[in-house]
Amino acid sequence: MAIRFELLKESNECMARLGKIETPHGTIETPIFMPVGTRATVKAMTPDELKYLGAQIILSNTYHLYLKPGHDLIEKAGGLHKFMNWDRPILTDSGGFQVFSLTDLRKIHEEGVEFRSHIDGSKHFISPEISIDIQNSLGSDIMMCFDECVAYPSEYEYTKESMERTTRWAARCRDHHHKWDTQGLFGIVQGGFFKDLRKESAKSLVDMDFSGYAVGGLSVGEPKDLMCDILEYTTPFLPKDKPRYLMGVGSPDFLFEAVERGIDMADCVLPTRIARNGTAMTSNGKVIIKNAKYADDFNPLDSECDCYTCKNYSRAYIRHLFNVNEILGLRLTTIHNLYFLLKLMENIRQSIREDNFYKYKESFYKKYGYIKE
Amino acid sequence: MAIRFELLKESNECMARLGKIETPHGTIETPIFMPVGTRATVKAMTPDELKYLGAQIILSNTYHLYLKPGHDLIEKAGGLHKFMNWDRPILTDSGGFQVFSLTDLRKIHEEGVEFRSHIDGSKHFISPEISIDIQNSLGSDIMMCFDECVAYPSEYEYTKESMERTTRWAARCRDHHHKWDTQGLFGIVQGGFFKDLRKESAKSLVDMDFSGYAVGGLSVGEPKDLMCDILEYTTPFLPKDKPRYLMGVGSPDFLFEAVERGIDMADCVLPTRIARNGTAMTSNGKVIIKNAKYADDFNPLDSECDCYTCKNYSRAYIRHLFNVNEILGLRLTTIHNLYFLLKLMENIRQSIREDNFYKYKESFYKKYGYIKE
Repeated sequence: MAIRFELLKESNECMARLGKIETPHGTIETPIFMPVGTRATVKAMTPDELKYLGAQIILSNTYHLYLKPGHDLIEKAGGLHKFMNWDRPILTDSGGFQVFSLTDLRKIHEEGVEFRSHIDGSKHFISPEISIDIQNSLGSDIMMCFDECVAYPSEYEYTKESMERTTRWAARCRDHHHKWDTQGLFGIVQGGFFKDLRKESAKSLVDMDFSGYAVGGLSVGEPKDLMCDILEYTTPFLPKDKPRYLMGVGSPDFLFEAVERGIDMADCVLPTRIARNGTAMTSNGKVIIKNAKYADDFNPLDSECDCYTCKNYSRAYIRHLFNVNEILGLRLTTIHNLYFLLKLMENIRQSIREDNFYKYKESFYKKYGYIKE
Repeated sequence: MAIRFELLKESNECMARLGKIETPHGTIETPIFMPVGTRATVKAMTPDELKYLGAQIILSNTYHLYLKPGHDLIEKAGGLHKFMNWDRPILTDSGGFQVFSLTDLRKIHEEGVEFRSHIDGSKHFISPEISIDIQNSLGSDIMMCFDECVAYPSEYEYTKESMERTTRWAARCRDHHHKWDTQGLFGIVQGGFFKDLRKESAKSLVDMDFSGYAVGGLSVGEPKDLMCDILEYTTPFLPKDKPRYLMGVGSPDFLFEAVERGIDMADCVLPTRIARNGTAMTSNGKVIIKNAKYADDFNPLDSECDCYTCKNYSRAYIRHLFNVNEILGLRLTTIHNLYFLLKLMENIRQSIREDNFYKYKESFYKKYGYIKE
């Protein structure tokens, strides 16, 4: 088996848990946040910087790599790790989410999905088997089943039909995967916002015995309470001895809520995307660096942070860089935001270890401004 | 005196020389290439990367910093070194070149130059005294006199009139400068492409005893031979015991030709600018990374280079990054080009030390493709 999960501790307070995942490229401590490297690069960062920031695993996108530069080229380069110079674990998504996001450009059949490239309009077809072939070429440590993520809100009938197809596709992915010795494969629970469908999806997938399980189709625009409710309902149907991954979540509050409900892994472009727009996550909430009030503020982005950015640069300098569109500006905010989230997850792990998750959550929420004092 | 030049060796072969410049922020070995950090950042690089690349001194632009974020803010931050987190020497230009480049937006008087900002059209005025005030606020180790750089070609009469004004302005700069203990000040030889004017300019400036002397108004579109001719004629009028700086030169051949004619310092945006467009300087000539032939080329940019980029990434990967507009692409080419030029200057220094400058020049020119074999 390519990957092995070990449950180290279950919280006394909630569904949170501590664990580790062994992969061919090293061990990951969970709960973990995974920075996103869509096109074989976490935007604006070198792999060495990611290591310095404490990234244990990154995510990369099958759909984007399939289009450019092509998975054949990456296979020829010796796989994605070698191509991008990253020797720690990589998780690849299946391309499903991206393909289904091309609402007007795709047609779904039982066999797979026809779609047009968002880049040049060229015609393509991805099936569960093709998604696995691509991910096998990429050589990621953790692959994902090809699934359909329905929009929010969606009708019961369509959600059910889609979830059942996703389940059939998961079986095809499982059967087609032929590199179990080096690559794990996760099933993805769907079922929208209907509990019976979530339960059915989870049970069917668990019967297929995947390396881990993702909860898909959440954080797609629904109210936060609804996401929490569905998540809390779903995770108990997943086996304790396999990792659980909530897709597309990266704000501090969503990470706390996910971990509290038994999630081990999460990913999101949020920290890097808002960094490039000049927004920093800090222990006292968001800092929008272009605001005039930071013009002569010679303090670091976050006075409690010891990242490279905060140790060496002032808000005034970073604001100047953003004002004149200098790349160093977004490099510095990206470094800080990733460090902030990776450190947050480290602190969350520590709080689970010490059974004071709720205390830590409350103090963080108060300082960050999620709870008004 | 803020800066002190020591002539270590004169070449047996040509006018080339080895030296060192001591400044309040450390010692510079000459001949040296200075990366350009126009807006208080060498584009896309951190100061730590610049150190890794071997940058001993960088240049920053007074005109740009005066407009944004303003020299007052930088002074408030503790000076340019502290503002941008660079503790090695900085040279600032005077703003003259940029102001005179705004051909349709400026009016020259004896007192100074009125101009409109290229950013927002706002009205400004810079005199020799104001340029010095700004550079004193910035706290650069080496400041430049406020001069006029005439276009190529220019009439004799106008060139003479302009050169004489530049000389009067140099005297005003010298008189106004009041931080000789921490900041050096260079005079700038002008006189266009007329030898008698160059001679007159050089002699007048040398009489004023500056910390060093720049040759301005070259590399402005004239034939290379003409530049070499004027340079060769001019440097002998400059004192041996002061550093000599050729402004705006950064291609390998221009650097060789400049050093051969007694130049100690040069700067140019060329290596960083072409890097951002995907062009790498390599020991076998330029590599335009977007070319289709590099699509599956898994060799480094330059197989003889040991920079971070060449040690870790392939042409195929860097080409992919450029094809999808990923910032890491231009970071990697910028790292390589700066390393390449800084290493070239190190090799040139070594060749002067060993009295085989011409041999090294010829072998470089052949490999780079300047000389067809």
